Amino acid sequence: MNIIPVNTSTAYEVKIGTSLLSCLGREVAAVTKFGTAVLVSDTNVWPLYGKNAEESLQIAGFHVHSFVFPSGEASKNAETYLKILHFLAENHISRSDCLIALGGGVVGDLTGFAAATYLRGIPYIQVPTSLLAMVDSSVGGKTAIDLPNGKNLVGAFYQPKLVLCDTDTLSSLPEDIFRDGCAEVIKYGILYDAQLFAALEKDGLDFEREAVIARCVELKRDVVSRDEFDTGARMKLNLGHTIGHGVEAGSHFTVSHGKAVAIGTAIISRTAAKHDICSQETCDRIQRILVQFGLPISTDCSPQVLFDTALSDKKRSGGTVNLIIPRQIGDCIIRPTPIQEVKALIEEGL
Amino acid sequence: MNIIPVNTSTAYEVKIGTSLLSCLGREVAAVTKFGTAVLVSDTNVWPLYGKNAEESLQIAGFHVHSFVFPSGEASKNAETYLKILHFLAENHISRSDCLIALGGGVVGDLTGFAAATYLRGIPYIQVPTSLLAMVDSSVGGKTAIDLPNGKNLVGAFYQPKLVLCDTDTLSSLPEDIFRDGCAEVIKYGILYDAQLFAALEKDGLDFEREAVIARCVELKRDVVSRDEFDTGARMKLNLGHTIGHGVEAGSHFTVSHGKAVAIGTAIISRTAAKHDICSQETCDRIQRILVQFGLPISTDCSPQVLFDTALSDKKRSGGTVNLIIPRQIGDCIIRPTPIQEVKALIEEGL
Repeated sequence: MNIIPVNTSTAYEVKIGTSLLSCLGREVAAVTKFGTAVLVSDTNVWPLYGKNAEESLQIAGFHVHSFVFPSGEASKNAETYLKILHFLAENHISRSDCLIALGGGVVGDLTGFAAATYLRGIPYIQVPTSLLAMVDSSVGGKTAIDLPNGKNLVGAFYQPKLVLCDTDTLSSLPEDIFRDGCAEVIKYGILYDAQLFAALEKDGLDFEREAVIARCVELKRDVVSRDEFDTGARMKLNLGHTIGHGVEAGSHFTVSHGKAVAIGTAIISRTAAKHDICSQETCDRIQRILVQFGLPISTDCSPQVLFDTALSDKKRSGGTVNLIIPRQIGDCIIRPTPIQEVKALIEEGL
Repeated sequence: MNIIPVNTSTAYEVKIGTSLLSCLGREVAAVTKFGTAVLVSDTNVWPLYGKNAEESLQIAGFHVHSFVFPSGEASKNAETYLKILHFLAENHISRSDCLIALGGGVVGDLTGFAAATYLRGIPYIQVPTSLLAMVDSSVGGKTAIDLPNGKNLVGAFYQPKLVLCDTDTLSSLPEDIFRDGCAEVIKYGILYDAQLFAALEKDGLDFEREAVIARCVELKRDVVSRDEFDTGARMKLNLGHTIGHGVEAGSHFTVSHGKAVAIGTAIISRTAAKHDICSQETCDRIQRILVQFGLPISTDCSPQVLFDTALSDKKRSGGTVNLIIPRQIGDCIIRPTPIQEVKALIEEGL
């Protein structure tokens, strides 16, 4: 097992290993008061791990309530959020109790936001079951829901008490969803760690699960510890995301987040090579590894559609967009870019 | 003008004086970036001060959007909250922009919660126009909405960038609503300041507005600086509130918050005298000043109704309720009380 301490406004640990789900009750007991544990999960994950999780918590002495909602990004909205809140209120959940997010990024984001705001904040634990959630969304305390106008427009910075990554759960993940997570793993290599990138090139989809996830969590931990509230360094994690969000929205969310990020990363890398910000070799390596992992590197969306959705992105700040651009493997820059220049840059990378 | 610095996780000032609303634009400009200012107000306050506020902001160089919702506690719900969020998203409000709450406690709580969660937090300014909001809800960063199951069940701790109390706005406040605020002013005297209490006994409803409000804000500032996240000392501010919430809910909210707090304070004082926690003289002074300010000191609600609603109160924590009990004027104690004992204590004070 890998244990990675995170020092943000509240300190907590990310534990990564096999067979951790069976220790859930004991692990939760160690970081909360003995009260009621509310398991939140979705219709994909609950049938696989819900009963085991409940039992582990009950054996450890918790009262358990479970709230299960339909799986999918479409559930990450105000309606589901309010349903969770009503469920908590109806069950008289207090600040001595806790929420447990059992599932992927949608479950984690929704549960985290409910925990952040119910009674102005009650404890919660992340139990990510997807690769994406393990390496990205479960660490760092960003919680959110979507609005009709855009993704993640409402949320809070709110740190969990514990993140428990049981790598066994990855075996039940559909291949396609696993690849989505790989896009974020590759992102860490491009952003910060040439050695990680090289290991991924060497091993491909057979990369060593626990070690690679632990390395990604370490890298994310280092960033969020320096910039908990997303005012500077954390921006780099948006590599591929500004254009990626455009691809997601432009495809009416038929292209998944991970694949959209892969496409966004490929586009910005090609633009970077054309402007000599990175070498053609670097750009080629980035495109090659994405293809190696079965990820797309191009889109049918028009530059206008991508541009319009990039504009409505929350990362826009006073007429400029902060684009994250690769310089070499393991090194990217933040470039504040006037909005009117963004469309041309997208066009060059398409 | 009185300026009271508040040092919480973010530092800000509370400014109290006359004619401050005409300086709104300049004051907001001093604590935010020049972006768009979104004024949030209700149908009572907007017709009185909305246009002046807009003009002051425009003169200072702000783009201004205004969102006005129906006045009253019934608006402090998830529906209005979501309407504000959609309004912000539709107008592409970014983190460089700000929200301004122009109104009483409901406006402040709703606007603060929207500001706390839109884009995971954007700046906001409180411009309280009721006595209650000036001395209580606008200071300390507690934001909230109600759920069908109870008041303030959802919210965030989120500090404003500035609180601007223009005491001129109190002249437009209906006498009855003004008295509601007086219940909280009297509360500060009972909790912390025998001298303030004596001044209120002497002056009655003609108390010196600016000085008394400033003193209450100072007292609240001292508490919230020590206990921003409501885990200890801040609990004392709930004097009269646990039973008061019972009175509010038991009357189906026909009894206002201030009057319910007055009743709650009177009940707990009578119980305290019966248990020799305070003297009969202290209890009499508390009841006398409430009557002097035109506030009620008794209720038709049954102890069972009050008890049931006290139980659903969020202050409940693991089988005990923290009751705040006067010992003498200016000195109260926090007594963790097993739930099963609360009903008898209420009955004794009725």
